[in-house]
Amino acid sequence: MVLKNKCKNVAVSMWRKNMLVLSTSRSLNTLAPSFHDNRILKSPTLVSLDFPDVWTCSTANSNQPTPVPKRASEHTAKVIDGKQIAEDIISAVAVQVQRMKKTIGEVPGLGVILVGERKDSQIYVHNKMKACEEAGIKFSLTEFSDKCTDEEVCNAIMRFNSDPSFHGILVQLPLPQNLNEEKVLNVLKLEKDVDGFHPMNMGNLAMRGREPLFIPCTPKGCVELLIRSGVEIMGKKAVVIGRSNIVGLPVSLLLQRHHATVSIINELTSNPEEITREADILVSAVGVPNLVRGSWLKPGAVVVDVGTHPIEDTSCEQGYRLIGDVCYEEALRVASSITPVPGGVGPMTVAMLLYNTLESARRKYNFI
Amino acid sequence: MVLKNKCKNVAVSMWRKNMLVLSTSRSLNTLAPSFHDNRILKSPTLVSLDFPDVWTCSTANSNQPTPVPKRASEHTAKVIDGKQIAEDIISAVAVQVQRMKKTIGEVPGLGVILVGERKDSQIYVHNKMKACEEAGIKFSLTEFSDKCTDEEVCNAIMRFNSDPSFHGILVQLPLPQNLNEEKVLNVLKLEKDVDGFHPMNMGNLAMRGREPLFIPCTPKGCVELLIRSGVEIMGKKAVVIGRSNIVGLPVSLLLQRHHATVSIINELTSNPEEITREADILVSAVGVPNLVRGSWLKPGAVVVDVGTHPIEDTSCEQGYRLIGDVCYEEALRVASSITPVPGGVGPMTVAMLLYNTLESARRKYNFI
Repeated sequence: MVLKNKCKNVAVSMWRKNMLVLSTSRSLNTLAPSFHDNRILKSPTLVSLDFPDVWTCSTANSNQPTPVPKRASEHTAKVIDGKQIAEDIISAVAVQVQRMKKTIGEVPGLGVILVGERKDSQIYVHNKMKACEEAGIKFSLTEFSDKCTDEEVCNAIMRFNSDPSFHGILVQLPLPQNLNEEKVLNVLKLEKDVDGFHPMNMGNLAMRGREPLFIPCTPKGCVELLIRSGVEIMGKKAVVIGRSNIVGLPVSLLLQRHHATVSIINELTSNPEEITREADILVSAVGVPNLVRGSWLKPGAVVVDVGTHPIEDTSCEQGYRLIGDVCYEEALRVASSITPVPGGVGPMTVAMLLYNTLESARRKYNFI
Repeated sequence: MVLKNKCKNVAVSMWRKNMLVLSTSRSLNTLAPSFHDNRILKSPTLVSLDFPDVWTCSTANSNQPTPVPKRASEHTAKVIDGKQIAEDIISAVAVQVQRMKKTIGEVPGLGVILVGERKDSQIYVHNKMKACEEAGIKFSLTEFSDKCTDEEVCNAIMRFNSDPSFHGILVQLPLPQNLNEEKVLNVLKLEKDVDGFHPMNMGNLAMRGREPLFIPCTPKGCVELLIRSGVEIMGKKAVVIGRSNIVGLPVSLLLQRHHATVSIINELTSNPEEITREADILVSAVGVPNLVRGSWLKPGAVVVDVGTHPIEDTSCEQGYRLIGDVCYEEALRVASSITPVPGGVGPMTVAMLLYNTLESARRKYNFI
């Protein structure tokens, strides 16, 4: 009960914080835009339907305890050690970088653009820099204040585009709201898009028989964790919570390429727990701490938790600790395997970025 | 029972025809490709995992009768009249074409390329030509024998690309196997890709906050049928059977943009009927006649049947009749609405092609 309440309290406060009244949006399907008198279709434009993810949950305000499915009382899920797996991958990348250097006198290069003062973005960029150093990948950071213009950021991207010593370019997201993310990312040369966020990469990831130049790092990291943990994906039921361009969408596409039967839960899904309870593999990438309770899981499911949320905790040295989308302590008693937060998906994102940068350089130099 | 057996026999013969032993493919996830000694990731390349859709079904060879959920014995689903809706749309397109002609002296133009002698492709192209004539859209057909080269087809596309009187170009698929579909379609100018199959269009359809220049015609037609029939999509559970680039994939992406909770069933899904029974909206685009039985449906579901299969029927004038993926007679007794075959989705595909061509011309001339 103590664990359950701890999970519930954090989740409820976040839900309340995010809560918006969505009921009025429900009639959007039947709205007739006024700008088109000569309108032929009843379908509204796509953009008009595009409102931000606001997660609510029918169980959020419930005082009912959520019963965790019974397994043997001593059962504890296997914890998937993302940190160790990421280190293994970074070491293997380092070996290949050395081989490239010795053989053709070149190393992969990564150009990063950071705009603004977001603490989390600064930490992520710092981690990427450290990992590049470790692997022998050239790293260059261009920083801007959050008052900069689209043009300044685009110019920085174009410098990396035309510099042959950089094989990967990364714009740390999210950008400050005054910048136009689409416009900025469109400048990025497709063959250096190591984050894989270009629509052309996304389309090629989605389409059968096509192959993207790069697969987005976090989704690729999730799937690599599954494969290295011996989890069979093909033919399994996978449920993805969240549909962001960065994680939810590409992880659902990638799991489909691995022949899973995929369901995607969004913020308007009623009773999401009924769907998650059918999942052999559950990926949560929704940004609500402790959304996924033990009772949401099928016994023996594999859980990949992409959420990372700092919550106040005076017992920790920094005054906070990180938790995920999944109520970890409850999930441990139900799942067969689970990725922890921190130390699960996070380090894999960095490892995959290095891998994509190496692959880009290999492709350019035709170095196998 | 007569209906049930009729449905089952057709389905079983098709399954048997398509049946391949897939059990050996199941180990693909763990295969280490031999071409990469310095391999870092356990993930296989994406292409290696890409085998063709081969639909089997656990219930295919069962002699068990499939019980149809009970509704009031007189219940019959509303039949969604795709033919009438498509005619309404084509008439509305025609009005706009006339207005464009009067106002700026231009009409939309569609260039079509047909390769080979496939009877079905010839019929589809003929229907498109007739509809263009009806709507006042300029139509030009370039035909090749199935012995032609990629280069010849690409040259024809490039002629349409550079001709300003053509606003849409369509390569009738499938192409003969000796042609490289990806190479050919890549030549097509993005702003004339009225079929919406370019990866850039698909990526923009998939990504939130982006908007594709064109939405593929059949998926757009399916969603337009739903909206015109007063079916709410937002917040509903939608299940898509099939994941082709032409229908399954884009319809699943489009339903997500309309905020449905979407599950995609593929040929490796075990017990697909358990998933379809949860669907408020079911779209079947799989190419197996009568795959979807009445027992696969939730009472009151809305069923969109994209399949079109000619089956021998000596009682018909032509010696054959068309049926869909859904066992229509059984579904009529369970669903709340259903699209018939023929006369459901098929005519909508043509109407949406005309709509996309008109939109392309409007965009070019900035004609609102």
